[in-house]
Amino acid sequence: MYGECNHPADSSSCNRGLPEETQTNINLMDVFNFVDLLPAKNGEEPTMQFLLEIVEILTNYVRKTFDRSTKVLDFHHPHQLLEGMEGFNLELSDQPESLEQILVDCRDTLKYGVRTGHPRFFNQLSTGLDIVGLAGEWLTSTANTNMFTYEIAPVFVLMEQLTLKKMREIIGWPDGEGDGIFSPGGAISNMYSVMIARYKFFPEVKTKGMTAAPRLVLFTSEHSHYSIKKASAALGFGTENLILLNTDKRGRVIPADLEAKVIEAKQKGYVPMFVNATAGTTVYGAFDPINEIADICEKYNMWLHVDGAWGGGLLMSRKHRHKLNGVERANSVTWNPHKMMGVPLQCSAVLVRERGLLTGCNSMCAGYLFQPDKQYDITYDTGDKAIQCGRHVDIFKFWLMWKAKGTVGFEQHIDKCLDLSAYLYDKIKNREGFEMVFDGEPQHTNVCFWYTPPSLRSLPDGDERRERLHKVAPKIKAMMMESGTTMVGYQPQGNKVNFFRMVISNPAATRSDIDFLIEEIERLGHDL
Amino acid sequence: MYGECNHPADSSSCNRGLPEETQTNINLMDVFNFVDLLPAKNGEEPTMQFLLEIVEILTNYVRKTFDRSTKVLDFHHPHQLLEGMEGFNLELSDQPESLEQILVDCRDTLKYGVRTGHPRFFNQLSTGLDIVGLAGEWLTSTANTNMFTYEIAPVFVLMEQLTLKKMREIIGWPDGEGDGIFSPGGAISNMYSVMIARYKFFPEVKTKGMTAAPRLVLFTSEHSHYSIKKASAALGFGTENLILLNTDKRGRVIPADLEAKVIEAKQKGYVPMFVNATAGTTVYGAFDPINEIADICEKYNMWLHVDGAWGGGLLMSRKHRHKLNGVERANSVTWNPHKMMGVPLQCSAVLVRERGLLTGCNSMCAGYLFQPDKQYDITYDTGDKAIQCGRHVDIFKFWLMWKAKGTVGFEQHIDKCLDLSAYLYDKIKNREGFEMVFDGEPQHTNVCFWYTPPSLRSLPDGDERRERLHKVAPKIKAMMMESGTTMVGYQPQGNKVNFFRMVISNPAATRSDIDFLIEEIERLGHDL
Repeated sequence: MYGECNHPADSSSCNRGLPEETQTNINLMDVFNFVDLLPAKNGEEPTMQFLLEIVEILTNYVRKTFDRSTKVLDFHHPHQLLEGMEGFNLELSDQPESLEQILVDCRDTLKYGVRTGHPRFFNQLSTGLDIVGLAGEWLTSTANTNMFTYEIAPVFVLMEQLTLKKMREIIGWPDGEGDGIFSPGGAISNMYSVMIARYKFFPEVKTKGMTAAPRLVLFTSEHSHYSIKKASAALGFGTENLILLNTDKRGRVIPADLEAKVIEAKQKGYVPMFVNATAGTTVYGAFDPINEIADICEKYNMWLHVDGAWGGGLLMSRKHRHKLNGVERANSVTWNPHKMMGVPLQCSAVLVRERGLLTGCNSMCAGYLFQPDKQYDITYDTGDKAIQCGRHVDIFKFWLMWKAKGTVGFEQHIDKCLDLSAYLYDKIKNREGFEMVFDGEPQHTNVCFWYTPPSLRSLPDGDERRERLHKVAPKIKAMMMESGTTMVGYQPQGNKVNFFRMVISNPAATRSDIDFLIEEIERLGHDL
Repeated sequence: MYGECNHPADSSSCNRGLPEETQTNINLMDVFNFVDLLPAKNGEEPTMQFLLEIVEILTNYVRKTFDRSTKVLDFHHPHQLLEGMEGFNLELSDQPESLEQILVDCRDTLKYGVRTGHPRFFNQLSTGLDIVGLAGEWLTSTANTNMFTYEIAPVFVLMEQLTLKKMREIIGWPDGEGDGIFSPGGAISNMYSVMIARYKFFPEVKTKGMTAAPRLVLFTSEHSHYSIKKASAALGFGTENLILLNTDKRGRVIPADLEAKVIEAKQKGYVPMFVNATAGTTVYGAFDPINEIADICEKYNMWLHVDGAWGGGLLMSRKHRHKLNGVERANSVTWNPHKMMGVPLQCSAVLVRERGLLTGCNSMCAGYLFQPDKQYDITYDTGDKAIQCGRHVDIFKFWLMWKAKGTVGFEQHIDKCLDLSAYLYDKIKNREGFEMVFDGEPQHTNVCFWYTPPSLRSLPDGDERRERLHKVAPKIKAMMMESGTTMVGYQPQGNKVNFFRMVISNPAATRSDIDFLIEEIERLGHDL
């Protein structure tokens, strides 16, 4: 099957470079190329025709994404795709291609990609394909504007402002007061938090550089996201000044370890400045005890950031938000709606409790963008808060989804995902061949486990068993991808050999998909 | 006219919250809400219906965007939009809205926005609405994946790699060798360049922080983009260690000033590390003399970055690329296809001549993402090069446009825009009431000028005239926005009072639109 053109609704304009059996309706596209599209004088008809052909390709893809009888992916190695699959040529050339060929290219791009919305795609924290969110992105692209000024994005700027306020209310800051901005992902949001903390305590670093401050140290869990480390390197702290905190067996920071390390740092003459508490770690889905960490931050006058990139969504659930108790005591919070809340990529917010810091930290007063003599209230311009200049409109899809689902809709989605992970946990905790990486019900949707093939089960604990078990998950994953039936992640952690990390944020997933995953792991791994 | 529903093709589903005359076909949407969409069991029909309704709204918007009889914008103040325009309610609520209302919200969002693709929108460096680029964005949203691994974005990762190589070839690096990455905008791309330079000269800063390095200084033109200053602040150099270079009357760096300031810095014991040469400044569109700056960088062993965010596109034009002569001597280059090349926002690349630096600088080896034991060649994973973790797919729309236009299509677009700016320059350089901010043909499409109303023309040069002239551009701009006929930017620069900065990157613009702009400025400003 080529280009997946065998669906009746998919029969348009694939008549070039295709095997004969898929050559179907010859239509308008045959004779047009890009110069015939708008803004060409008579470009309206071909433009509408072209866009509708694209939409047909996309809606077919959407349909198939949710069809369990289709594969999650059709895997090929880089060299295979680079050599050109059945005429799919990735190379760019000097001369234009016809619009007909462009449509074929679009089809092929989707064919060789990964269906991240497929009910059996569990590979990342961001999964699923929300239809209202998708519509929001299509509109955003069509509006094609920039968040830096109210002048050219009035509606989006206001939507961002109202949504950030709502998020701050949900965090629990009085009257939703504070500040915030949408950024191109959780890593950048976390970077903002470190920058703002530094500006709060040592504003002179902005002008004089890091040498104007004493030796500053930051703290984060050994299980936290690597973006805190990236920020330490990028912002000039140095990764050695990021001190990793010990965790309990569930991957939660041990507050006493934080206090001990703060005291130790102070004794060395360093200045403890910033603590990151993770709400939902990447691998274990652990929630650090925010209240206890906040006590220590208050005692030693440190900035408390909560990285809720993954776990922030649980704030929408009355049943699960207690896992973030104390978040209202944070100075800043990262929260990625593009993860647990199912908003299309990219959608990440950093929220700041104290007003003025974001602008103070990042403002450079560029006269050509942020003219003080505009006719409207320029406090609505957001550009001077950002480390970016141009900024993509990430708010609209989120705003539109919130309108369509209501707060209750997000809550239902989150509760459902957590129920599914409890179902998975119950299913495998005592199942033969499965072993949990840590004991007890998962706090988030992360379920971490080893699958041990029969051939290893009788081996005694020891290096040989460990080495062989370490190779099992990669092998099963490779076979999964080759067969294209499902996708789930694996990784080692500390001294633990490779294990599967199952995460559920996909609104399309059901118990039957969880069952399928487990059976698939057993099927593929049985004879290893 | 409400919601612009009077177009025959626009007659769907606006029957709630609308004045009676626009209540038309009642259809499927009336009874559905988001829970009826896919992945709901029988969600396919309402999903397709909903998406087609959205597409109808969007294609109508596209049609009108290119229609000169429509306004560029329908301006309202923030408080007006916040109060709710004719039922357009921006507030989020706990309970879901119907899909019908969602469609109305989409319509309203577009109605109160700004048509950045309109032939008379000249307000920013990024303008226009390329139809193939738009199709590319729609597909990107539908694929909804993430650039960090080949595993989940095989096709997009390869497209990025091939496109970056092509861009490096065009820059002139032998065999297109080197490295690079697409980032969320020019400011972040410029930030990358400073980080990489620091890593090249002082790799220990990554682990030990800025205190491990001597006092480092950076150089950039007083006319350069403020993102270099933002990077100096964020990365811990401090803005005082960014030394501003004097420019000639055209806004180009004076190389002798650079050398003098380098020598001065060295005499103070500072270490000159990084020079930014701008290829196409934001306001004047000036091109710094790269070859002469490169000579000085080589002499004093400094990193040369070329910020071609705005001017990089000229590399595609055989006629204009000489303005970037010497760019092949740069260590890194920022180039934003979303500006002069008309690619939808966001699309920015940073290109690096030396392989390995990007990864060396940013790698944190996160085991849970970048497993060394995958079944494919993991050198294709890009995540460890980035300061981001998740990364939006910005490549596809650009790749698709390149396919559709060919290199020659970009060249034609750029040559046409520069021809138009020459036309504008010729038209106003001797026109009564107009005065150029600097003499001579513009290097880029930036044309900077004052319009002096008749009432000021007889005033002698001096403070009063300056003060009154300073207020003219903001007043005209405000009236322009209120009437919605066109949009162009203004700003002061140094000791020069507010002037208009006309830029042309919009593929829809023609000479008649330039004529219109000038007449509109005269019409609105005549009686000031």
